[in-house]
Amino acid sequence: MSTATSPVPGYAYGSARLARAPYTTADLAALQKALLFTQEDVEALRQSKSILADQTDAILDVWYGFVASTPELVVYFGDAKTGQPNAAYLEAVRKRFALWILDTAAANYDQAWLDWQYEIGLRHNRIKKNRTDSVDSTPQVNFRYLPALTIPITTTLKPFLARKGASAEDVERMHAAWVKSVLMQAILWSHPYVKEGEF
Amino acid sequence: MSTATSPVPGYAYGSARLARAPYTTADLAALQKALLFTQEDVEALRQSKSILADQTDAILDVWYGFVASTPELVVYFGDAKTGQPNAAYLEAVRKRFALWILDTAAANYDQAWLDWQYEIGLRHNRIKKNRTDSVDSTPQVNFRYLPALTIPITTTLKPFLARKGASAEDVERMHAAWVKSVLMQAILWSHPYVKEGEF
Repeated sequence: MSTATSPVPGYAYGSARLARAPYTTADLAALQKALLFTQEDVEALRQSKSILADQTDAILDVWYGFVASTPELVVYFGDAKTGQPNAAYLEAVRKRFALWILDTAAANYDQAWLDWQYEIGLRHNRIKKNRTDSVDSTPQVNFRYLPALTIPITTTLKPFLARKGASAEDVERMHAAWVKSVLMQAILWSHPYVKEGEF
Repeated sequence: MSTATSPVPGYAYGSARLARAPYTTADLAALQKALLFTQEDVEALRQSKSILADQTDAILDVWYGFVASTPELVVYFGDAKTGQPNAAYLEAVRKRFALWILDTAAANYDQAWLDWQYEIGLRHNRIKKNRTDSVDSTPQVNFRYLPALTIPITTTLKPFLARKGASAEDVERMHAAWVKSVLMQAILWSHPYVKEGEF
């Protein structure tokens, strides 16, 4: 069952209370050109949406298994005092992560989407990490892991793209579009980490 | 003909005069885990070396064609006064770029390699851009394009990986290893752009 139909605490895509992103839709268009991201990728992402819609829990089981088995990553869900993974924090993020899968597949790129990407970046950075879920965890996710996670996320997604009868060619197209989209988002999320004027 | 046998101005991989990178081989190992980068990727990269060795000029024709046709990118080779692309600068970088292809395929990861990655990052950042070739160009390559270029570089490389009779499966393995390696390097190159303590 998708969690998309229930309200998810901290999920704020489209909220008027979000800060305005420091990048515009024109900036995004330029970045998409550099990423070879085209309308064909938009269509491939949207094709993936119905394929993934009822698989988000299974996908998150794989992703959380990877994080749990990688000490370098699970530390970011650790309690600041004990170092033990905070189960409530993991679960709160997981609910938003399921919606992120569907939002990535929806591929609607406007200022509201950009503002939400910026908010997601702030929540990884020391500026806002831990606040959404009122947890006492590590102060930031280090920058290096934001672009890096493009690979495990999209590599482990691929089998799920193939589970609903899409042709091998379509699975390749959807996978390639996902790689571009996740990398594009990781770049946008990196803004709070980058020195003034260098983004 | 590969340019690997002729001395290339500004190419400094292995030079004792390079600054020590701010990341260690242990940091790299952790990053590789997050990227799902394994010994199999090392082997796939090395398999690609002999395939690519006599194709570097043809590959660079494609890459430079992409840069030349993308105003958002060619600006970084522009003359600071006229805005026109600086042909000598483009050519100087191109010679090092050919060696970079072979070095990426060699996949030897030690401190000398890390120091060279750091130097490459500095040369994109305002800290050192333009100095190597004594040019008066734009003061920096903006951060956003470093990770982004992973996609055009590896997408356009793929046909060249297939030109020497490797199996379709091997081409896929080599391509996947290249994506991981280029993204890994782009992350390392980003260090000078990232705020103190957040890398």
